[in-house]
Amino acid sequence: MHDLIERVFLGTFPAPALAARHDGAVLDLGGARIAFTTDAYVVSPLEFPGGSIGSLAVYGTVNDLAMCGAEPRWLSVAFVLEEGLPLALLERLTRDLQEAALRAGVEVVTGDTKVVDRGRGDGLYLTTAGVGVVTGDAELPSPERITEGDAVLVSGDLGRHGVAVLSRREGLRFETELRSDCAPLNGLVAALLGGGVKVHCLRDLTRGGLTSALVELAEARGHTIEIEERAVPVCEEVRGACELLGLDPFSVANEGRLVAFVPADEAERALAILRADPLGAGAAQIGRVLSSAEAKGGPPGVVLRTAIGSRRSLDMLSGEQLPRIC
Amino acid sequence: MHDLIERVFLGTFPAPALAARHDGAVLDLGGARIAFTTDAYVVSPLEFPGGSIGSLAVYGTVNDLAMCGAEPRWLSVAFVLEEGLPLALLERLTRDLQEAALRAGVEVVTGDTKVVDRGRGDGLYLTTAGVGVVTGDAELPSPERITEGDAVLVSGDLGRHGVAVLSRREGLRFETELRSDCAPLNGLVAALLGGGVKVHCLRDLTRGGLTSALVELAEARGHTIEIEERAVPVCEEVRGACELLGLDPFSVANEGRLVAFVPADEAERALAILRADPLGAGAAQIGRVLSSAEAKGGPPGVVLRTAIGSRRSLDMLSGEQLPRIC
Repeated sequence: MHDLIERVFLGTFPAPALAARHDGAVLDLGGARIAFTTDAYVVSPLEFPGGSIGSLAVYGTVNDLAMCGAEPRWLSVAFVLEEGLPLALLERLTRDLQEAALRAGVEVVTGDTKVVDRGRGDGLYLTTAGVGVVTGDAELPSPERITEGDAVLVSGDLGRHGVAVLSRREGLRFETELRSDCAPLNGLVAALLGGGVKVHCLRDLTRGGLTSALVELAEARGHTIEIEERAVPVCEEVRGACELLGLDPFSVANEGRLVAFVPADEAERALAILRADPLGAGAAQIGRVLSSAEAKGGPPGVVLRTAIGSRRSLDMLSGEQLPRIC
Repeated sequence: MHDLIERVFLGTFPAPALAARHDGAVLDLGGARIAFTTDAYVVSPLEFPGGSIGSLAVYGTVNDLAMCGAEPRWLSVAFVLEEGLPLALLERLTRDLQEAALRAGVEVVTGDTKVVDRGRGDGLYLTTAGVGVVTGDAELPSPERITEGDAVLVSGDLGRHGVAVLSRREGLRFETELRSDCAPLNGLVAALLGGGVKVHCLRDLTRGGLTSALVELAEARGHTIEIEERAVPVCEEVRGACELLGLDPFSVANEGRLVAFVPADEAERALAILRADPLGAGAAQIGRVLSSAEAKGGPPGVVLRTAIGSRRSLDMLSGEQLPRIC
């Protein structure tokens, strides 16, 4: 998928905004600035512990806007319905969507619906696009601003969304039901930026999890990011489920977690701000961006210092670990 | 579909922009205004004479923005790929998309890709969203501004898109290959508005054709619209194909045609402006909005004066005449 995107899409569309590999595009209206982003949602099953395709389609797009440093404001929603989708289910998912929009403080202002024949879809696919407003003229968080020495923070423990969806899909039961972390992150971002933290880069940890996000960011500007395995928060249930299912919790999808790059001397303050919000209660510093001297001329990428003290490179999985997780 | 949208979506999402039943939402940024819209594209087959899902996904969304009186600027594109889609086809469709964006003068700035398993899609579904800029503070074309006495114009002959797609789908051959009319209409709209025509309302004639558009607009504000059957341009090939296939050319989809409501005394000037552009060469006045005296207290809707002088009401089809036409 990664290769496909690189080859077909970046090769075809010349926009600099796309080449920046950001979660969305920041566009200049001659004075005002807006952020604009889209995601398609094909999660299976349509409902899972802690959320549904409806809430996911709101939070995913809201979070992409927030990662650009914008205040999410308006959403579009396009429905591709498979013939035979029960109307009661459609109504429930649509209600989830609207409730999520209210929670995130955004408004669904435009939409479209198409119906495809039975066997040409899977109940419902949703695509949302979002427009956010950038206030002030401060420099925005962006992959280009990642700097040697930056502290790398996560806003909470990892892997809940992927495990929750997969357990419902496979009909697995755990002692405690694990719920998706899916949530709107615009409040956390507003608190960080409003608190004056010089946030260099933000990325929400969706498909491909922590590993994908960090590898992509490291490669974008040729940095080496070092992660302390023991510092990465993963709850016992997720750890256990991942062992059982043969998954890597660092590569499992999240839908309510972000990674933030901040100057080392602002890390403590940033963590305090994150932890003051229930959605950031489990925030932690998990690593830092090495200087070129520390990286010793190695190729850019992500290095994991394991619990037993060894070092290994953290690589993106070549196949999709969990298809249709979002 | 119409009933479903009314019931589920308008019942769930409270935004006034949605209730206006416009092609997109016009949003106030505190000074600047933007238009925002989305459409999903599920056309089958993916390629047809005169276009493909790639060009359609650009023109459809560009046209919706233009109908709001906005200058289309930026697009997002979300791909839902079915496993097994030939890469060469994907590349061709993506190229179509980019060429259409260049032709329409818009930029693809953000996107997403999801892959679904074989048998859960149909090659490719696309969803585009678009953002346009509203310049100046003039009153914008909108269904609310339709006024008794308005002239009703179309920008060209009807039905080409629907017949072109259907003939490819069904493997039909006609003497001359009928090509889809799919095209960007922002140039036509800019010419009308830039020429100072007081355009009350614009609507592009997509799914459901002329009939759907007019019935929806008539019902929105309780107007009666009278259409002169003989004045509605339909080319011989479309007329013949529709007879053969049992279709009503007034209800067949177009993707490069618009209807415009203008004050009666500006109709001639508007037609001259439209006809000066090759995309509007076949523009014609097809009817007008009746005064309440002329409507004689009948229910709002569309009345057709037929070629033989009789009058009948033009109704929206209850089922979808042509599924997956866009």
